[in-house]
Amino acid sequence: MSTIMNRQWRLAARPVGLPKVTDFAWREEALSELKEGEVLIHNRYLSLDPTMRGWMSDAPGYLPPVALGAVMRGGGVGVVEQSRNPAIAEGAVVQGMLGWQEYTVSDGRALDVMPAEPAVPLTAYLGLFGMIGLTAYYGLLDIGQPKPGDTLVVSAAAGAVGSLVGQIGKIKGCRVVGIAGSDEKCRWLTEDLGFDAAINYKSGPVYPRLRAACPNGIDVHFENVGGEILDAALGLINLRARIVVCGLIAQYNATTSTPGPRNLGALIVKRARMEGFLVLDYYDRAAPALRDLGQWLAEGKLTYRVDEVVGLENAPAALNRLFEGANTGKLVVKV
Amino acid sequence: MSTIMNRQWRLAARPVGLPKVTDFAWREEALSELKEGEVLIHNRYLSLDPTMRGWMSDAPGYLPPVALGAVMRGGGVGVVEQSRNPAIAEGAVVQGMLGWQEYTVSDGRALDVMPAEPAVPLTAYLGLFGMIGLTAYYGLLDIGQPKPGDTLVVSAAAGAVGSLVGQIGKIKGCRVVGIAGSDEKCRWLTEDLGFDAAINYKSGPVYPRLRAACPNGIDVHFENVGGEILDAALGLINLRARIVVCGLIAQYNATTSTPGPRNLGALIVKRARMEGFLVLDYYDRAAPALRDLGQWLAEGKLTYRVDEVVGLENAPAALNRLFEGANTGKLVVKV
Repeated sequence: MSTIMNRQWRLAARPVGLPKVTDFAWREEALSELKEGEVLIHNRYLSLDPTMRGWMSDAPGYLPPVALGAVMRGGGVGVVEQSRNPAIAEGAVVQGMLGWQEYTVSDGRALDVMPAEPAVPLTAYLGLFGMIGLTAYYGLLDIGQPKPGDTLVVSAAAGAVGSLVGQIGKIKGCRVVGIAGSDEKCRWLTEDLGFDAAINYKSGPVYPRLRAACPNGIDVHFENVGGEILDAALGLINLRARIVVCGLIAQYNATTSTPGPRNLGALIVKRARMEGFLVLDYYDRAAPALRDLGQWLAEGKLTYRVDEVVGLENAPAALNRLFEGANTGKLVVKV
Repeated sequence: MSTIMNRQWRLAARPVGLPKVTDFAWREEALSELKEGEVLIHNRYLSLDPTMRGWMSDAPGYLPPVALGAVMRGGGVGVVEQSRNPAIAEGAVVQGMLGWQEYTVSDGRALDVMPAEPAVPLTAYLGLFGMIGLTAYYGLLDIGQPKPGDTLVVSAAAGAVGSLVGQIGKIKGCRVVGIAGSDEKCRWLTEDLGFDAAINYKSGPVYPRLRAACPNGIDVHFENVGGEILDAALGLINLRARIVVCGLIAQYNATTSTPGPRNLGALIVKRARMEGFLVLDYYDRAAPALRDLGQWLAEGKLTYRVDEVVGLENAPAALNRLFEGANTGKLVVKV
């Protein structure tokens, strides 16, 4: 076993602005013997998510910062290749914070063991049936509380979370308007996913087009972006609107603090609520959400797209696809 | 009756920035005969409130803008001098949107008739036992949901609403920190009203002093101001904090749109809620609040201060005392 070489990306520097490849260090090292209780996981897919940018910073967050010199934190799915843990068999498919590396040694405590014969591709565990699916499901339904007939607006609508939020909104009877960064993404939203309208935020000011797309105002706004988009949405909210703050990707790479929405007074006039959430808080309620998502997938009411980058060595460069809006659907790295 | 002269302030121009006296026009005109169903009110006190600045603008708000040339809208309390309305006796004390004038003719529909022999000064109906008291009570208790041991921060804490919010917070067992605009106001908060700490926002940056005053973070933030203060509070909120957006006086007179809080990401990390409200929505629940407020007043747990400007002619100039932070407690004009 000591002859197995592991390949890793370690965090070498705290990024300033967009992460650079040089903020990471490539490391190849021999794996040591498994200790009692440990498993060796051969990682198959790593998840790339906007929230990882926060983990690379040393500002206080909902998880401790990744230490300089440590393997970059990241969700992943892999197969147990060796096990000295009686609870986890060799061959088991597992999911967890496996990190940016080819192999992960784990004591098994923070691992989720997947069904023995998965009915879905492994990447689904990083998307629809993982953190992404739960984020979309509970963020929209628990925080956003959409009612049939409501107008739902979703930003970063062609992203992993946004594309699911919009589809769940349709299932719940909402008029759904997506905001995305290209005409092609917008076509995907309206033609393939059933969104009622989509706006390319790169082709002009958002507010007038959002107003035209929401003739009855906005009841639920699912925010992944912030900045101009949040301001435009605030300007159009209805009485007792719910603004779900899932992400603020527009400011994750800012090197100076970025101003918030100018239209905050709309919260008073419209008696509206803006609320943040983290999917971590919903893990103990995962089961009913996964059942619904699986059911909707089986019924053809839900579709998802995986954007796959091949090669662990490409992980650092691939991360910025999220911030450039280059991905459509869930971005993963095939190890 | 046609010999009674009325004196009025009418809105002459939409203010740009701080309202100027020249934005109003003084008018003296003879009152016409009362029609069937009408009452003639001799106004005694007018209420000056920050929210009136919004009514003077033609931007969409929760009430229609005051029309140019119309009597300036404003709450007030007065005594019925003549009545052709069988439901309202002459001599009755009434409260309502009486406007900036010495006499008001009303059909009685939007009037509240006060107890025949009030146990409190008339000005109390514009403060503790009026819109102000209900705003403080329901804003804090319904939206803020304070629990014993919570840290509550109140901005514009020496104002009419803020001073009540802090005292209600103490009654509910919170640690209460006020933010106000002078050392004298701060002393009033801590020495007379029982606040645990108070910060003069004019004597230096708010954040470090607020952090020192809130060693356990902030659970409920009652916002009357916005700007730097809201940002500082966001930087200190605890898990599942509630931010009550009652007012954003820092931007009411802005001539360009003002940026919102930079720390909005704290809503996600702390799974926190920011919610606006209007007291209008609570009028049908006024009774239990007024009972509690009266009880607390009788028990000496609550005190309030009235800042009285004498003379209807001084109303326009007095309004800016609110925006300059010159008032302590409820600002009223004695007609």
